[in-house]
Amino acid sequence: MSSARPLFVVAGVGNGSGTGAATARLFAKQGYRVALISRGVDSLNKLASEINTAGGEAAAFPIKDYSAAEIKSAFTSLKAHFQNAPLRVALFNASFGVWKPFLEITEEEVQLSTETNIIASFAFARESLSIITKQDVELESEGGVAGGIRKKGTLLFTGATASIRGNVTTSAFAAGKFGVRALSQSLAKEFGKQNIHVAHTIIDGGILTDKSRSFRNDPNWEANPDVRLSAEGIANSYLYLVKQDSSAWSWELDLRPAHEKW
Amino acid sequence: MSSARPLFVVAGVGNGSGTGAATARLFAKQGYRVALISRGVDSLNKLASEINTAGGEAAAFPIKDYSAAEIKSAFTSLKAHFQNAPLRVALFNASFGVWKPFLEITEEEVQLSTETNIIASFAFARESLSIITKQDVELESEGGVAGGIRKKGTLLFTGATASIRGNVTTSAFAAGKFGVRALSQSLAKEFGKQNIHVAHTIIDGGILTDKSRSFRNDPNWEANPDVRLSAEGIANSYLYLVKQDSSAWSWELDLRPAHEKW
Amino acid sequence: MSSARPLFVVAGVGNGSGTGAATARLFAKQGYRVALISRGVDSLNKLASEINTAGGEAAAFPIKDYSAAEIKSAFTSLKAHFQNAPLRVALFNASFGVWKPFLEITEEEVQLSTETNIIASFAFARESLSIITKQDVELESEGGVAGGIRKKGTLLFTGATASIRGNVTTSAFAAGKFGVRALSQSLAKEFGKQNIHVAHTIIDGGILTDKSRSFRNDPNWEANPDVRLSAEGIANSYLYLVKQDSSAWSWELDLRPAHEKW
Amino acid sequence: MSSARPLFVVAGVGNGSGTGAATARLFAKQGYRVALISRGVDSLNKLASEINTAGGEAAAFPIKDYSAAEIKSAFTSLKAHFQNAPLRVALFNASFGVWKPFLEITEEEVQLSTETNIIASFAFARESLSIITKQDVELESEGGVAGGIRKKGTLLFTGATASIRGNVTTSAFAAGKFGVRALSQSLAKEFGKQNIHVAHTIIDGGILTDKSRSFRNDPNWEANPDVRLSAEGIANSYLYLVKQDSSAWSWELDLRPAHEKW
Repeated sequence: MSSARPLFVVAGVGNGSGTGAATARLFAKQGYRVALISRGVDSLNKLASEINTAGGEAAAFPIKDYSAAEIKSAFTSLKAHFQNAPLRVALFNASFGVWKPFLEITEEEVQLSTETNIIASFAFARESLSIITKQDVELESEGGVAGGIRKKGTLLFTGATASIRGNVTTSAFAAGKFGVRALSQSLAKEFGKQNIHVAHTIIDGGILTDKSRSFRNDPNWEANPDVRLSAEGIANSYLYLVKQDSSAWSWELDLRPAHEKW
Repeated sequence: MSSARPLFVVAGVGNGSGTGAATARLFAKQGYRVALISRGVDSLNKLASEINTAGGEAAAFPIKDYSAAEIKSAFTSLKAHFQNAPLRVALFNASFGVWKPFLEITEEEVQLSTETNIIASFAFARESLSIITKQDVELESEGGVAGGIRKKGTLLFTGATASIRGNVTTSAFAAGKFGVRALSQSLAKEFGKQNIHVAHTIIDGGILTDKSRSFRNDPNWEANPDVRLSAEGIANSYLYLVKQDSSAWSWELDLRPAHEKW
Repeated sequence: MSSARPLFVVAGVGNGSGTGAATARLFAKQGYRVALISRGVDSLNKLASEINTAGGEAAAFPIKDYSAAEIKSAFTSLKAHFQNAPLRVALFNASFGVWKPFLEITEEEVQLSTETNIIASFAFARESLSIITKQDVELESEGGVAGGIRKKGTLLFTGATASIRGNVTTSAFAAGKFGVRALSQSLAKEFGKQNIHVAHTIIDGGILTDKSRSFRNDPNWEANPDVRLSAEGIANSYLYLVKQDSSAWSWELDLRPAHEKW
Repeated sequence: MSSARPLFVVAGVGNGSGTGAATARLFAKQGYRVALISRGVDSLNKLASEINTAGGEAAAFPIKDYSAAEIKSAFTSLKAHFQNAPLRVALFNASFGVWKPFLEITEEEVQLSTETNIIASFAFARESLSIITKQDVELESEGGVAGGIRKKGTLLFTGATASIRGNVTTSAFAAGKFGVRALSQSLAKEFGKQNIHVAHTIIDGGILTDKSRSFRNDPNWEANPDVRLSAEGIANSYLYLVKQDSSAWSWELDLRPAHEKW
């Protein structure tokens, strides 16, 4: 039955060329209905159209900022839209980074890093878990989607090198990313007992996106899959985590290109 | 010369029975002039009086909340008060914790944890480092205070078990404390080169304070120094860190009672 | 051509009911030829027979102990046996643990933990990497096995909770497991540049094996996939790591049952 | 009474210009009788003479290698020599490092790293704790040495960057140092309850020793205390750890020069 097809929700899809968008595309192909939450209404609509055109089902829920109120409002809308769909996978992929010597970082930038990383991840987790905790454990036959055995749902968070290591010029970014990691670990411990899987990835390298292409302007870097992360590779890791059997769940996974120095 | 006596600033002294207050007392005895920043004007004034009566020199700078504006305002006042004193030691000891199942934590509590832990620690570090970076390296003879060799100053942060491990019921607290740890590590790496020492402690156990006495109501626990932290023991570790020679600085120190299970 | 089918080598298969054996079975089903290195010639032969009977191809290389000489000798034999097979996956799964108060651990037990964990993992890595470094990058069409793109090979290590945390009664075991983790991280950094993937798992919970069944004698524990690890679940994670694209490799993965307290 | 003066034992003093020797000198000045265990009988005797000439009391216990038998034999000798002295501080400072691409590291070097780091640290801890566990808690008046309150003794281990991070060319060294760290953490957790303090330092930078002077041949590096560790600074940290009150013990302390990049 169409209404039983599982729902995938992601917050943070940028301009549609990065991790959030690649993961949305992959889960759409796996049979999930897709709810897209992000700022930037044009990119968001474009990604939804692209997924729908490709035979998937996606809807866009634009937000003005990453405040708790906006996140909450997006969930209200998506619940109305995807009424009976069980929320099986929720990915918090939003992030705000600033790379500057500490004394040049403004109070506003600290606020924005804190809001986008911590306030928003808490709001996203609150909304997602409020739904997931009330669901039954997934049936294997559900919507024809394989895996996800004995889970009510999976809550995923995208981290970075700055999630585990503070460094020169990363203070505000690292504070936010460390905070998201703390949240994800706390939730993994609290909700595992309820058969809800919470996981966190550490993306330890540069991802090939429109932004990095333009910023680096380095065709060799683009062409060599050993030296940069692909958003699709990260998306595959999320699919793997979602499919993990409840007798062997991972909380944390690091991901980097083969040739990365670390 | 009296004006050259070094200044110690602390944010977060609670009701005067914990880590912040014990450290203020110890540094006052070591010859530092003491600036106390905290909410709770009565406790703050009481502690300042106590230190002054005991022959030290302390002044209270009450704040309404841990917003960046309030912290900034307190520094403006203390700079006016302690005009020529070199700021040699700044301790960020404020904290806001909430221990609840995740779905019972309110958005306001997340905001408060974020503000008190992260926004405030950034503001405190900004104000402190804006002063310390402009100072010369401490002279050994300065104000008769020993140690602190080849430093412009020391910036200290009080952490907790929740600084390194998220757990059931600690999500909001851990997010804040992880964030403070990220800041302190970033600053240690950035400002070490300028001979500014940044350090972080992980307080891994219960501290004997008025609050814990009343909460636990366990005379055996109070009487046995092997099972609970003393605020004075923590203060001693801060004095040790301040006195570390620049050829062997620590960023992080864990502290727990001898009998603690960990 | 049959000789081009890839080779999987594992050291440490116990009595055939745990991680090493489950992984051998899984890779055999995926089309790999399987070399089994272990003590306990009877269990080893039984597992090889079982895999061969099921349509796979396995050969047993029994060793007397986990000395470097025995490991080297086993590799000499297996290279002769599987002449033209490219060594694509090598799993070091051997382990010796002892759980006792420190002063009851004998010098012999420390030696045995050191040999089985560290000396043996170095010898296993030396033999494996001596082969793998000389191979070409895997072809996608190789032996019909999917994945493993742009890799010369994958070297896997099985870790445990004791790989990242020393504890009361685990000193000798943890020293060995920490050592294996150090090796795997060093190798991951050194050989990634050569398109050789090195990964480490942290098995954080009890695995359902003949040994644990007999030791626990708890039918509820056995029957509930949420409370104990399955060797098959761990094997699946190894297959996933082997299939990771070189643009997103993981070094470390933790695995535990959904309901595990950690 | 002279016989009640406390005993300090150290294993690993090199040629007398590094951490082990500096710590021996410092504890001798603090009133401890000093037992020196090391290979290199000439350097060992020279250091003992130097301490005795300076008014301290030291005796040398040379060993041929870092096997358990040699360590045990050294303890038998030192117990006979310092009959009634309570063993209050034991420092394991031995280390064997090798920095090479993995495939160039010989089996002998792995064995030597394992023996010197792991086998020896276990033997040293076994001998030390066999004595310390049977002692009473230190009296404050003991031998006129201040501090060490409510402890039976302190067991210290010297670690390195390689204790927490494997890297290219450090596989064998890191395996050994990770192992020592695992031991120290396990012992800290097991023996804290018996009022025995176990601590571990992470020396994260180059130490100024005869060896590093000769190797680097860089007068600027030698002259600038901000860029290299001093053995005396490390020794001071050991004295601090020994003096920590049982209500605030540290297990782990990192130490690096002010200007170190990390």
